[in-house]
Amino acid sequence: MEASKEYHFLVSALTKFNSAGETRDIVGWLKERAEKSRMTVERIPFSEMRKWHFEDHTGNLAHDSGKFFSIEGISVETNFGSKPRWMQPIINQPEIGILGILAKKFDGVLHFLMQAKGEPGNINTVQIAPTLQATRSNYTGAHGGKSPPYLEYFRQRGGKTLLDTLQSEQGARYLRKRNRNLIIQTSENVEVLPDYCWLTLGQIYELMKLDNVVNMDARSVLGTISLDVPELHGVPIGEQVAAIRKVDSVAAKHVPLDVDPFTEHVIASELSTCKPVHDVDAIVSWMTELKSQTRLDVCPMPLKQVANWTIGTHEISHDDKRFFSVIAVSVEAGNREVSSWTQPIIKPQQEGLVAFVTKEIDGVLNLLVQAKVEPGNLDLLEMAPTIQCLTGSIRDAAAEDLPPLLSWALESPVDCFESSTMQSEEGGRFFLEQNRNLIIKAGDRTHAEIPDNYIWMTVGQVKTFTKYNNHVNAQARCLMMGLGFTRAQG
Amino acid sequence: MEASKEYHFLVSALTKFNSAGETRDIVGWLKERAEKSRMTVERIPFSEMRKWHFEDHTGNLAHDSGKFFSIEGISVETNFGSKPRWMQPIINQPEIGILGILAKKFDGVLHFLMQAKGEPGNINTVQIAPTLQATRSNYTGAHGGKSPPYLEYFRQRGGKTLLDTLQSEQGARYLRKRNRNLIIQTSENVEVLPDYCWLTLGQIYELMKLDNVVNMDARSVLGTISLDVPELHGVPIGEQVAAIRKVDSVAAKHVPLDVDPFTEHVIASELSTCKPVHDVDAIVSWMTELKSQTRLDVCPMPLKQVANWTIGTHEISHDDKRFFSVIAVSVEAGNREVSSWTQPIIKPQQEGLVAFVTKEIDGVLNLLVQAKVEPGNLDLLEMAPTIQCLTGSIRDAAAEDLPPLLSWALESPVDCFESSTMQSEEGGRFFLEQNRNLIIKAGDRTHAEIPDNYIWMTVGQVKTFTKYNNHVNAQARCLMMGLGFTRAQG
Repeated sequence: MEASKEYHFLVSALTKFNSAGETRDIVGWLKERAEKSRMTVERIPFSEMRKWHFEDHTGNLAHDSGKFFSIEGISVETNFGSKPRWMQPIINQPEIGILGILAKKFDGVLHFLMQAKGEPGNINTVQIAPTLQATRSNYTGAHGGKSPPYLEYFRQRGGKTLLDTLQSEQGARYLRKRNRNLIIQTSENVEVLPDYCWLTLGQIYELMKLDNVVNMDARSVLGTISLDVPELHGVPIGEQVAAIRKVDSVAAKHVPLDVDPFTEHVIASELSTCKPVHDVDAIVSWMTELKSQTRLDVCPMPLKQVANWTIGTHEISHDDKRFFSVIAVSVEAGNREVSSWTQPIIKPQQEGLVAFVTKEIDGVLNLLVQAKVEPGNLDLLEMAPTIQCLTGSIRDAAAEDLPPLLSWALESPVDCFESSTMQSEEGGRFFLEQNRNLIIKAGDRTHAEIPDNYIWMTVGQVKTFTKYNNHVNAQARCLMMGLGFTRAQG
Repeated sequence: MEASKEYHFLVSALTKFNSAGETRDIVGWLKERAEKSRMTVERIPFSEMRKWHFEDHTGNLAHDSGKFFSIEGISVETNFGSKPRWMQPIINQPEIGILGILAKKFDGVLHFLMQAKGEPGNINTVQIAPTLQATRSNYTGAHGGKSPPYLEYFRQRGGKTLLDTLQSEQGARYLRKRNRNLIIQTSENVEVLPDYCWLTLGQIYELMKLDNVVNMDARSVLGTISLDVPELHGVPIGEQVAAIRKVDSVAAKHVPLDVDPFTEHVIASELSTCKPVHDVDAIVSWMTELKSQTRLDVCPMPLKQVANWTIGTHEISHDDKRFFSVIAVSVEAGNREVSSWTQPIIKPQQEGLVAFVTKEIDGVLNLLVQAKVEPGNLDLLEMAPTIQCLTGSIRDAAAEDLPPLLSWALESPVDCFESSTMQSEEGGRFFLEQNRNLIIKAGDRTHAEIPDNYIWMTVGQVKTFTKYNNHVNAQARCLMMGLGFTRAQG
């Protein structure tokens, strides 16, 4: 068996211990870093923001430099869903950002250099983040100034590229925003700064069992990693583990002998040789049909003309206090290049819910994937979790307006909930926003009628589509990160 | 060996004869259909157009119903290429059209129901077109009225879907226009109307050796067909043909024993098991890097404010008579649902040139693919032929402004030109527009330095990317149709 990069991902995924210790040690380290960060965040009126202003003619909220991001208005018309037209504020941030993770092998096992990163909107102050989160201007050094740590590994690219894809951000909040998701493997000596720590994929999967510990950017990058090992196709996972232990005596120390059954199914569902319900051509045809039917007209408009939204002194909010509001915060941070600043940030009015319904079909685990239109999508619709909604909308909604499959999924017996955690949105843009993340096993229950815009796919198929940008949405990518390895072992 | 749909494509590709006869018989039939069509096209001033008007405030040229298409203005800013900003007219046609080809097996060989279709802009009056070219409104019957022939095979979908992808149109002329490319296989009895004819893929490849016979829509659909036969991986093409003859005695009658060497290489380059220069992940990384670097801002603007373009009584044209102009025509047709109409149409000012440079690398044929920004692209840049330019620009341009690799490619020895034909753009929108199509073998010549936005890919890889919409541009897809089967056989 020759070592391929995928094989290295699988070994790392199965390795749950290293010198950083167990989950509780990492959580302890995070707490310590949170205390050291001394970040304080205070809500302020818009008038106290420095270098931000409302534009005269439009009311758009923008930075004086024209950089960073702005809050603008859009009007939306679509034939998808029950709401044919609306207006809303949206984040406009045209530059493609970089989410980079540095990887290196220790003791034969691939580790990822993760950052304990504080962001003003974070629950828990600091969360596990990629090595580098940079704007294109940071990345290219266009504006001069101090560059973020570890930038050189991503710019000079002496290492090996393990992952390099373009991914969409949340289409309900961002107008066509994308980030480049990068994993670079180095063999150089890397200085580990105080806020950084080498972790295996298995350790990060363990942290996913906790609420609000792994940040959204880390989940986006790591959630698309393929664990498929071409050399091991057709080999049951138990035998795969044995095979890995055999060829790699050092890794053998770390890789446990037993894998829980659901994880086994998730890994099997990633193998490109498993027999799917629909082949890739059929899934492409399904997307083609849906895109051909869908109309989505999104027009930028002045923020101050957005109907049903009011720009107040302290917040821009929906008149029924639904969806989200835009507020302003003042931030003091001990460990950032810029130690104090003010910024607008999005505050949710309602908790959200994302869920994948899973089912074993002909021996292979499948995810029920939804094709979903959101106004910030570049290309009409993207593959989304089975359920993706705001729970406030659920409470208010008439039964016929509820998202399809919602009641059926939520009424599942308790032992069908393979995983249930709260996970945060990106704390640089979203204020204390967390959403319920569920993995639900359909089991043998007769399911509700599945609408045309839902399809069963294997995990490997969804991960294949993540390569071709703007096919799989942010929520689906992040939720895949919590898919396997969901239960504590032994 | 089990029969798969790809196997059926390969047999059809190798079959050059059927009851419709040889190439000369088909050309004869096309001439006959052209005479029967009695289509006359006359240039008129804009003022004589019926149901079309220039909008008061914008000067945009639109249909009174708001349907069909309109000619609008855009202003473009980009950091790609040598021209940072310009304005131009562009076709806005937001609906996704359908290009559908009906397929059926006769004598064990897959045939395609092709149409001898007249369009006002056609060279040769009629050209070989898909079974169905319909707008979404035609397709769904939204407007009632007479539906185009064979529509039911594509709407009811009793047949088997062999191909169903969303494809971009030319990004220099259309604003984010896309068509759905469909091939449906039926086993029903199909009435063959006078303008239609069953042809094998091999027969259509033969017609590609002639100038302006196979229309652009047919080339787009058929150019993305994968000839990859998973069952035959690793088998040399000669033995593949023998294997096909053996399992399918009826097909054996049609499939010739000898395949020319270049065709053999093209087919080998489609096999998903051939060892490429770059794997798919590396190509995705290359696209990600380029998309991250690229800025392309395209703003709709009133046509009458487009600088350097003038709206005259008979044409909308660039003041230096470059690029293209928009003219008006009056059409009389004997065999269309609507027998007379007027419409705007695009008239080129310059001849274009598209070329793939090919090279055998480690025994596998590769295409030199260019990532190219065009203002109508939905997603910044798409994979394009090695060379795609207007020859007028070449003649006028300073050496440093010439497209990369152009001089090197055009100075190739004569025997490096594997194929050279003139092919037409879509005659419904473009008036007598034909472009030089070249397939050039790089051979062993030292080539010019290859810029960062070029990459070697196998034919199979390019065809894989066509599945994921807006990755491969119209010119590249169409040019692949003329790639193999380029030389007349023995």
